[in-house]
Amino acid sequence: MSATIEITRIEKSKIASVDFNNLPFGSVFSDHMLTCTYKNGKWESPVIVPYAPIALDPSAKIFHYGQSIFEGMKAYKDAKGNTLLFRPLENCKRLNKSAERLVIPQIPEDVFMQGLKELLKVDDAWIPTNEGSSLYIRPFMFASGNGFHASPADEYKLMICTAPSGAYFAGKVNVLIEEKYARAANGGVGFAKAGGNYAAQFYPTQLAIEKGYNQVIWTDDNTHEYIEEAGAMNIFVRINDTLLTSPTNDRILDGITRKSILQLAEDLDIAVEVRKISVAEVVIAAQSGTLKEMFGTGTAAVISPITGFGFQEKDYELPTLEMPFASILKKAITDIQTNKSEDLHGWRVQL
Amino acid sequence: MSATIEITRIEKSKIASVDFNNLPFGSVFSDHMLTCTYKNGKWESPVIVPYAPIALDPSAKIFHYGQSIFEGMKAYKDAKGNTLLFRPLENCKRLNKSAERLVIPQIPEDVFMQGLKELLKVDDAWIPTNEGSSLYIRPFMFASGNGFHASPADEYKLMICTAPSGAYFAGKVNVLIEEKYARAANGGVGFAKAGGNYAAQFYPTQLAIEKGYNQVIWTDDNTHEYIEEAGAMNIFVRINDTLLTSPTNDRILDGITRKSILQLAEDLDIAVEVRKISVAEVVIAAQSGTLKEMFGTGTAAVISPITGFGFQEKDYELPTLEMPFASILKKAITDIQTNKSEDLHGWRVQL
Ligand SMILES: Cc1ncc(COP(=O)(O)O)c(C=O)c1O
Ligand SMILES: Cc1ncc(COP(=O)(O)O)c(C=O)c1O
Repeated sequence: MSATIEITRIEKSKIASVDFNNLPFGSVFSDHMLTCTYKNGKWESPVIVPYAPIALDPSAKIFHYGQSIFEGMKAYKDAKGNTLLFRPLENCKRLNKSAERLVIPQIPEDVFMQGLKELLKVDDAWIPTNEGSSLYIRPFMFASGNGFHASPADEYKLMICTAPSGAYFAGKVNVLIEEKYARAANGGVGFAKAGGNYAAQFYPTQLAIEKGYNQVIWTDDNTHEYIEEAGAMNIFVRINDTLLTSPTNDRILDGITRKSILQLAEDLDIAVEVRKISVAEVVIAAQSGTLKEMFGTGTAAVISPITGFGFQEKDYELPTLEMPFASILKKAITDIQTNKSEDLHGWRVQL
Repeated sequence: MSATIEITRIEKSKIASVDFNNLPFGSVFSDHMLTCTYKNGKWESPVIVPYAPIALDPSAKIFHYGQSIFEGMKAYKDAKGNTLLFRPLENCKRLNKSAERLVIPQIPEDVFMQGLKELLKVDDAWIPTNEGSSLYIRPFMFASGNGFHASPADEYKLMICTAPSGAYFAGKVNVLIEEKYARAANGGVGFAKAGGNYAAQFYPTQLAIEKGYNQVIWTDDNTHEYIEEAGAMNIFVRINDTLLTSPTNDRILDGITRKSILQLAEDLDIAVEVRKISVAEVVIAAQSGTLKEMFGTGTAAVISPITGFGFQEKDYELPTLEMPFASILKKAITDIQTNKSEDLHGWRVQL
C-alpha cells in the first residue's frame, strides 16, 4: 500500500535560529510533523504539516485514561550525506506491540515507514551532521476520542515529531538499586512503551536524586531481588569477563539497543549470558572485585556506563577500566549506525 | 486564601439541545470549565471559560510520559433545589495524594474548593434534578510542559469539567477473576488515580468481554490469589451475613464510596471485616451456598451488584436476594447524598 501523503510546508523555516553545535536533547523541534488520524474504524491518510500545537477536547481520553504509547529512534547522516535509520522496522513492530496491549489500533508498517521517510526528506536540513549528533525521532500514538468513560477511545492519532540532538555526555552515573518502588507489574504494561510507565518512575527517581543518585535500577516488584532495568534503559552487568543481561519479560522493555548489543557482543567473542541477575550476586561481585562494569542501553544515550551503585545504605564504586566493554560495544554499534563499518546484520536503512 | 476567579461566560448556552431525560454517562458537557495553570513554580489564578478544545504543543509531556491524574465526583440537587456535594474535600485530598506520587504539583485545597463551587454556580442549570441523575464532575491534572525527556514537566494544568449524567442501570454484571493480567504493581501507582492505570486495564477487560464477561476482578499481581478491585471500583463480598472488603494498599484505590459504605454498614449493624479476601474462599463459598453477594463501589455507579463470576473456566452464579445489602446500602448512601436522610457524619456539603 502506498498512501498519498499531503504535505503542507512551513512558510518560513526556523532552522536559522538553531545552534547545531549546542543542541540540548529533545527540546528543539524540526519544522514539520506527521499526523495520521484513526477515525470511523480506520486510519486516514497521513499528512505532513508545520510543527504546531494540537487542539483536543478536554474530554479526550489521553487526558484521563493514559491511553498513550511512544517510540524513540534516530536518523544519522553519514560522511556522504546519506540519511540512515537503524532497524526502524523494529520500532514500528514494537509500537504495534505496545498498541495491542493498550488497545490502540495498530498502524500498518508500510504507512509508518513511508510517512517517516517522507518526513525525514521534508526536514532533511534538520538532520545534524556533527559527530555524535543525530535527529531524535519521536513517533507517538494517543487516544484523541472523547468521553468520561474508562474504556478505549474511538479516535486516535499517530504523530511523528523530530528533534535534532547533540551527543550525549553523561558524566558520573551513580545509581540506586530500588527496594520499595516498582515501574511495572507482573501481567502489566512494563514491556510496552506506554506513557504511564514513565510517570510511575518519576517519584522513586526523585527520591533517589534527593539521596545523591542519578538514576534508579528497577528490580522485580515482587521480591526486589532481581535487577531488571536502569532508569529508562535496559541493563548489562559485567562480572569478570562475562556480560549479563536480564531476559525480557512482561515487565521489561525489549530494547532494540539491547538486542543489537547482544548480537555485537557475540560477533566480538564477548561471553554473554541472558539470565536473571540477582542483586545479591552483583553486591558480592562488587565486594570481591569481580564486578567490572554496569551499563544501560537505549536509543537516546546508546550506552550509558554506570560508575557506582547504592544498595541498603551502602555505596559501591565500579572500577575504571582501560578498555571497557561499554566503549568497545558503543563504538561497534555507532559505527554501524553512522556507516563507518560494515553492516553485517542488515540493520541500516538508507533513505 | 481567596483567589479571584475570572469568569468568561459562554455567548449562547448549549443547554436547550440537551435531553435531560435521556442522558448518557459522561458524554454531554456543561457550558463551562475551570482551568488553572502551574507555571514558573506556582499556581496561577483559576479561570472559568466556555467549554472548548485546548491547544498543546506536540511535545507536551502528557502525550509521552503519562503524567496525568483525575478525580470523579458528583453534584446533586435536593428537593428544594440546593446543590449538594458529597465529601468533596476527600476528592481534593486524594487528587493531591495522586499528584505527589506522579510528581505533579499539589493544588491548595481552598483554591480547588472555591473553583469547584464557582464553576457549579456558573453551570447551575446543568445539574440534573431527575431522580438518580446527577452532575458528574471530572477534575484532572496533567503535564502541559514540553520536551522529549522522561522527567517531570515544568508546567501543569488543573481542569474541572462537568457532565450531566442519568441514573446508572447496569443489568447483569458477570465478572471474570483475573489470573494473568494486573492493573497495578507493588510499589507502583495503583493507589493513585493515575491515567496509566486505566489504559492498563483495557486489554484484559477486552479479553474478558470477548469471553462473555462484563468486567474483570483484579487480583494481586504476584500470586493472583487475593481479590483487590472490580473494574474501576472497590469490591465487597458478602459471605453469610458478613461483608468483606480488602484493606487498601499501594495497589488499591482508597475509594470514598468504599469508606462511606464501611461506615454505613457499621451504622446499620452489618458485620464487616476489612481483610484480605482469597479467591479460594470466594469459590468455596459459592460452591457451598454461603456466598450471598458481591458488589463494586464507586462514584459513578455508587453500588454495582455482581450477578456472577467466572474463575478457571467455571462459572458461578450469585443468588437473587429479597433485600440485599447492596440495595440497603445504596439507598442509605444516596439518601444522604440527595438530602433525603440525616447526615450523621457531616458528609454533605451544600453550596
Ligand atoms: C523502559 C525502557 N527500557 C529500555 C529502553 C531501551 O530501548 P531501545 O534500546 O529500543 O531504545 C527504553 C527506551 O529507550 C525504555 O524506555
Ligand atoms: C480503580 C478504582 N477503584 C475504586 C474507585 C472508587 O472510588 P470512589 O468511591 O472514590 O469513586 C475508583 C473510582 O471511581 C477507581 O478508579
